[in-house]
Amino acid sequence: MVPRYARPEMSVLWEPEAKFRIWFEIEAHATQKLGEMGVVPESAGKALWDWWATNPKIDVEAIDAIEAVTKHDVIAFLTWVAEQVGDEARFMHQGMTSSDVLDTTLSVQLVRATDLLLADLDGLLAAIKMRAEEHKYTPTIGRSHGIHAEPVTFGLKLAQAYAEFDRCRDRLIAARKEIATCAVSGAVGTFANIDPEVEAYVAEQLGLEIEPVSTQVIPRDRHAMYFSTLAVIAGSIERLAVEVRHLQRTEVLEAEEFFSKGQKGSSAMPHKRNPILTENLTGQARMIRAYALPALENVALWHERDISHSSVERFIGPDATITLDFALARLTGVVEKLLIYPERMQANLDAMGGLVHSQRVLLALTQAGVSREDAYRLVQRNAMKVWESNGALSLLELLKGDEEVTAALSAGELEEKFDLAYHFKNVDTIFDRVFG
Amino acid sequence: MVPRYARPEMSVLWEPEAKFRIWFEIEAHATQKLGEMGVVPESAGKALWDWWATNPKIDVEAIDAIEAVTKHDVIAFLTWVAEQVGDEARFMHQGMTSSDVLDTTLSVQLVRATDLLLADLDGLLAAIKMRAEEHKYTPTIGRSHGIHAEPVTFGLKLAQAYAEFDRCRDRLIAARKEIATCAVSGAVGTFANIDPEVEAYVAEQLGLEIEPVSTQVIPRDRHAMYFSTLAVIAGSIERLAVEVRHLQRTEVLEAEEFFSKGQKGSSAMPHKRNPILTENLTGQARMIRAYALPALENVALWHERDISHSSVERFIGPDATITLDFALARLTGVVEKLLIYPERMQANLDAMGGLVHSQRVLLALTQAGVSREDAYRLVQRNAMKVWESNGALSLLELLKGDEEVTAALSAGELEEKFDLAYHFKNVDTIFDRVFG
Amino acid sequence: MVPRYARPEMSVLWEPEAKFRIWFEIEAHATQKLGEMGVVPESAGKALWDWWATNPKIDVEAIDAIEAVTKHDVIAFLTWVAEQVGDEARFMHQGMTSSDVLDTTLSVQLVRATDLLLADLDGLLAAIKMRAEEHKYTPTIGRSHGIHAEPVTFGLKLAQAYAEFDRCRDRLIAARKEIATCAVSGAVGTFANIDPEVEAYVAEQLGLEIEPVSTQVIPRDRHAMYFSTLAVIAGSIERLAVEVRHLQRTEVLEAEEFFSKGQKGSSAMPHKRNPILTENLTGQARMIRAYALPALENVALWHERDISHSSVERFIGPDATITLDFALARLTGVVEKLLIYPERMQANLDAMGGLVHSQRVLLALTQAGVSREDAYRLVQRNAMKVWESNGALSLLELLKGDEEVTAALSAGELEEKFDLAYHFKNVDTIFDRVFG
Amino acid sequence: MVPRYARPEMSVLWEPEAKFRIWFEIEAHATQKLGEMGVVPESAGKALWDWWATNPKIDVEAIDAIEAVTKHDVIAFLTWVAEQVGDEARFMHQGMTSSDVLDTTLSVQLVRATDLLLADLDGLLAAIKMRAEEHKYTPTIGRSHGIHAEPVTFGLKLAQAYAEFDRCRDRLIAARKEIATCAVSGAVGTFANIDPEVEAYVAEQLGLEIEPVSTQVIPRDRHAMYFSTLAVIAGSIERLAVEVRHLQRTEVLEAEEFFSKGQKGSSAMPHKRNPILTENLTGQARMIRAYALPALENVALWHERDISHSSVERFIGPDATITLDFALARLTGVVEKLLIYPERMQANLDAMGGLVHSQRVLLALTQAGVSREDAYRLVQRNAMKVWESNGALSLLELLKGDEEVTAALSAGELEEKFDLAYHFKNVDTIFDRVFG
Repeated sequence: MVPRYARPEMSVLWEPEAKFRIWFEIEAHATQKLGEMGVVPESAGKALWDWWATNPKIDVEAIDAIEAVTKHDVIAFLTWVAEQVGDEARFMHQGMTSSDVLDTTLSVQLVRATDLLLADLDGLLAAIKMRAEEHKYTPTIGRSHGIHAEPVTFGLKLAQAYAEFDRCRDRLIAARKEIATCAVSGAVGTFANIDPEVEAYVAEQLGLEIEPVSTQVIPRDRHAMYFSTLAVIAGSIERLAVEVRHLQRTEVLEAEEFFSKGQKGSSAMPHKRNPILTENLTGQARMIRAYALPALENVALWHERDISHSSVERFIGPDATITLDFALARLTGVVEKLLIYPERMQANLDAMGGLVHSQRVLLALTQAGVSREDAYRLVQRNAMKVWESNGALSLLELLKGDEEVTAALSAGELEEKFDLAYHFKNVDTIFDRVFG
Repeated sequence: MVPRYARPEMSVLWEPEAKFRIWFEIEAHATQKLGEMGVVPESAGKALWDWWATNPKIDVEAIDAIEAVTKHDVIAFLTWVAEQVGDEARFMHQGMTSSDVLDTTLSVQLVRATDLLLADLDGLLAAIKMRAEEHKYTPTIGRSHGIHAEPVTFGLKLAQAYAEFDRCRDRLIAARKEIATCAVSGAVGTFANIDPEVEAYVAEQLGLEIEPVSTQVIPRDRHAMYFSTLAVIAGSIERLAVEVRHLQRTEVLEAEEFFSKGQKGSSAMPHKRNPILTENLTGQARMIRAYALPALENVALWHERDISHSSVERFIGPDATITLDFALARLTGVVEKLLIYPERMQANLDAMGGLVHSQRVLLALTQAGVSREDAYRLVQRNAMKVWESNGALSLLELLKGDEEVTAALSAGELEEKFDLAYHFKNVDTIFDRVFG
Repeated sequence: MVPRYARPEMSVLWEPEAKFRIWFEIEAHATQKLGEMGVVPESAGKALWDWWATNPKIDVEAIDAIEAVTKHDVIAFLTWVAEQVGDEARFMHQGMTSSDVLDTTLSVQLVRATDLLLADLDGLLAAIKMRAEEHKYTPTIGRSHGIHAEPVTFGLKLAQAYAEFDRCRDRLIAARKEIATCAVSGAVGTFANIDPEVEAYVAEQLGLEIEPVSTQVIPRDRHAMYFSTLAVIAGSIERLAVEVRHLQRTEVLEAEEFFSKGQKGSSAMPHKRNPILTENLTGQARMIRAYALPALENVALWHERDISHSSVERFIGPDATITLDFALARLTGVVEKLLIYPERMQANLDAMGGLVHSQRVLLALTQAGVSREDAYRLVQRNAMKVWESNGALSLLELLKGDEEVTAALSAGELEEKFDLAYHFKNVDTIFDRVFG
Repeated sequence: MVPRYARPEMSVLWEPEAKFRIWFEIEAHATQKLGEMGVVPESAGKALWDWWATNPKIDVEAIDAIEAVTKHDVIAFLTWVAEQVGDEARFMHQGMTSSDVLDTTLSVQLVRATDLLLADLDGLLAAIKMRAEEHKYTPTIGRSHGIHAEPVTFGLKLAQAYAEFDRCRDRLIAARKEIATCAVSGAVGTFANIDPEVEAYVAEQLGLEIEPVSTQVIPRDRHAMYFSTLAVIAGSIERLAVEVRHLQRTEVLEAEEFFSKGQKGSSAMPHKRNPILTENLTGQARMIRAYALPALENVALWHERDISHSSVERFIGPDATITLDFALARLTGVVEKLLIYPERMQANLDAMGGLVHSQRVLLALTQAGVSREDAYRLVQRNAMKVWESNGALSLLELLKGDEEVTAALSAGELEEKFDLAYHFKNVDTIFDRVFG
């Protein structure tokens, strides 16, 4: 975890205190249920919750001190709780195994992290939608291979991004479901010493599903799917970040990351405004993708479980979620405040002297009865002049002056072929598909 | 693609002829719809389908020969079709761009590949279920960290695998939906020269959804999600493969990959039967996981599209699906024919002289009023003797001979603590959860 | 392996015949040495080499037919050789294990592949050097973050690429050494049934080093290092490919992948020349990088060996080397024939109206005694005018007309600050470092 | 960075104070040299070093507070230094760019980190060597595919590990060289405003080489190679960790991670000693491997540089080196204190009733004139009895009682074939190769 790429609401989920609070809830819910079932005194659960109602501070240092002696984190925690709650606490953890607590806690942490990420995505989607509607009909050149192709609108670019992050949202909801399970099944998952009803109760209280078959651990294919989903979202972040980086290039300059008036004044080179936020996002996306790999390697644990997944998850649990949270929030800010330059978009569109319309003219000539070969020849000889002039000449004007062309198409007909609106007649349809 | 890891039904999907057949279908459906809409003569679509009804052979070499001249694969194909169908064929592809054909074709290929993979998974699930029910109550030692823990049944091991591959099945259905989309939207996705109704028609005919917003290409976050899902499935394959490899170790030998009588006789070392199928699967899993990475990097195409994804997909499209198909089928065979040795499982269970039951005895002693400390001491002094005998001594017998123990627990009570059935009382519950 | 990304000289190394030829050489060298040592008749080696001297055709189908019966590839091969050579052949393979042949063969294949790759790199380096010298002093704008920074020369860009690929060459030589080892050590590497001298002899004959300690297999950390090195080279390929893709963008257009006159004429849109070769290389780089991952996972084989590495290597052995060979050759062609446009470079350099020189003016003003704050203010007020004119105004001219500026710096002094040569005074030094 | 997997000597390298100290050294060396060259007053460098000689505390908070205003980390640092040193400090950083400081600092950090890692490897190698010599002739079964093959010695297993980590050491030395470069070349690497001699001087003072051609940044292929090398080392760590995990399995139990007497007594299940250190190492190896990926993606920066590598390096710089340092130290401890059980190794070796010697008998029979087929039949019929007895019968005894066998081989000859020493005659040779 890199502090500068961390936001408090997410980071706090991964701090010891948050973890201990979930541990307590799991233990207390289980004790409560065991009490109802008559396995332990009903007073035990009550004592735990009564203490919890006092909103006690979790003394992480004290628990750590006990662990330094017991060499066992869960026992240390239980000991500390017992010190606070008193004798009734000895009924905690009955029939359970440490992994029941640890794995279910990881589920709760990931669920809560995911809820933050879903809110992040909502914010990002709202920002993209707002800017998309704002620029629904702002003409800009569509580029394939980095080369001018045909006109699109800036709103369409953003509509694509919206549709992509909306898919990411669906994926994240599915990923949340993957890891929202609870296991309270004992040493090797046989419920030998604890009734499945306890698991069902704890799961319900925590908003989780029961894990159908656990083997001391919750199976790690779930986590592999979860972190792979974060990796896909990172890919989409990178795509939009790269788009902004391209648009901000000196030669393109159709959009820029926000800078305040003050920032502008800070240098003698007013053009040197670097897309550092989106470059930064590009790097973060690489990291989030990388975290999926060890999660995939974690699946093949030995027999009922080995603990090789644990060190991996100490890294990627916080690192992947904290970084993705930060990245989504940063990207939202970039989109919300993006400086968008429609005039420059138009200028770039026009820079080729109208060559982007040559295919429509070609088609029109053939439809007007000119042979395909002749049509090509006519368009091309004018297009080449425009091209060689670096866009200083206008294809439309040249065509209007080419008698072989005007023999087939009138000036008005030619002008109609250079009408941007022709390209945008289905923008509404696409927007309906995406935002409808 | 490695031929020895390829099965024909899947491989054939990725061969040129299969690709050209899908190309034709897309073009013919589009032409048909354009005819209905009056954009091209209705006769054009009819001519195409009439020819298709003759079940013509696709002459891949002839098409390649044309491509060698035109340097454009789609044009080469259209030219060849026109040669076969005649003049009406010139209305094909109107308003479309090559990527409309290429990307929608990839969707169809991946959908068909996925349907084969789903059938593979069904076969694997059936095999696992059969063996799970067969060994529902076959006792075996549960192992955490590779160390004997507490008893489970072999059926439970397989129930876990079933639940895991059942999740994989759900994931694959979701992944199929990700890539089952159709784009027929023209040069930069604006439908400038083709009506969205054509896309809707082609999609419906091919069993695909329309792509809400394409930009010459179908967005690659879809494919990233698809190949990441295959990677997760590979992880689950590796898990079960590693389990078999462990079980077949000389010292464990609780199960073996099938070998025929003939195979057994082939060597002077009858114990040298290597789990080569599951080792092989382990390697294949590594490959399938690796293919997800470039798919993730493919997401961030430049602007409306660049073509860097294409070379990647020429590799991973066939390689990931063909290898996964092969791996699932191989694993199914391994499971179906796995030689399972319940006697050896029991022998291994017993090898520790009953130490796996020590915790139950400990608990029983404390419940019988012995202090926690004394109970530990009593169990431990007997357990250590068993341990030092390498399992030659029996914990139960030693306990029965320990007067301090028998003062608290009768012989019958002690025997009850060594009852395997105690551990299996919830096997039914777990099976109901998984197979119910 | 994707046929369209494969060149014959490399592909042929991975075909069955090439493999069988190496197998023969290993077996024959070993038999020769065993004969010299008196372990087998000296006539055995002679018979093998005599037959080999007849340049016999390897009948792959016949060997495969035998394997279909024996289920063992090396035995099938030995059987076929024995059929050809006669009775003396029965002394082949004495004391050896199949992996002695298989692993040493992989070493030979990788060594030969590497020699082709080294030749590829030499070709690429030569091409880069040629173009670097050609454009040693061609001015172009240096860009950080995609934003104009200060002037560089196109030769410097290429010098960087040269230095990078020269490092790649050193790395590849080191990687070659990693995998250039020979193991002929028997079933578990103890030389129980074969003398280490045989290994030494075979190694020498094949131009390999002996593997100090093999365990049936050559350890896979070597191969992990090898394929990781290919991955790094792929990264460098991507860097240069991305540079070309950027330079070819419509708005930048400082360079283009080669197109013939004929190609130019093929479309009505003369600007639509796509950098498809370098986009293609970008995708190939992703694949070559991905192949390093399973090689890294192959390291941790179980005990003396498991065979999980084998299926991985059937993929990545050919796929990584063939694709890298293709990619290096393609990149060499791109560089050799790259269309470079110095006028456009100059035009882009000038497009900012001289803003790229503002920092030199700033420094000169402070050195002329103007306070830092005043200097900033003076430069900035002129720079902003240039910026707002989109480069139509000239910073130099504005400064010359600013009395506060000219009070400190004469027109001549100002002009000197706009001299590109100032930036290029160390180009020679850098070229000496790189090419010297 | 996960605190529990971090050791102070390595962590401290990545803390702000360490970074600022290196920044100072770079700036002071450069100023010193600029003074000698007459570009700035000689007093400037002196003032800096005089202050430094007072061993001043770096006030990280104060610097951060300045950065909060200036929004620029290097300027903030320079400002703070100026506040401490006084007026002479204004000559610092002349002609330099921030990346000159940042990138050279990263080089210094990685070099220092590597020196720690090299020391770690030395420690690990020493530990392996000690245990290898201790168990040079301790017989143990060699296993291929997890199945008993032929005898090796435990020393040979460790000799393999030694050779592997010795290669890792060489690789790390090469990787150190990759990143031990210094760039002080100005805004786009042209040395426009700073003489190359300054770079040479700074490099020499810091023990670095000059970067032949930098472009504001040091090229990232170097770092890709560096982190890929760490990934390979992680693979070797995993291999040895997996070996220990296998050896500690309940059924194998030929070695165990150290546990104190106290630990042994802590549970009622004396066999439940889990190889948690090596499982933990397995997970850490996955992480270190994963960190190579974003480093590989960092290579293809745009043009002279973009800053996408920076966020990646904030993660992987510390995380990869700190985790590898921890892992090497942990593995060293595991090896040093590994509990090795020669009796159990012998018992496992014998568990197959001598079947591991069957191939030697087979060979001896054929050498004694028995036909290959008969020899097989004779060995096999006895071997099968041993196999079916689960190793209770002895192959040697059965052979001695088989008249057809004894007709060809005397009892003494048979016994000689069961001599372990036969397998170990080249152990010395192999040890000489590895340790010699």
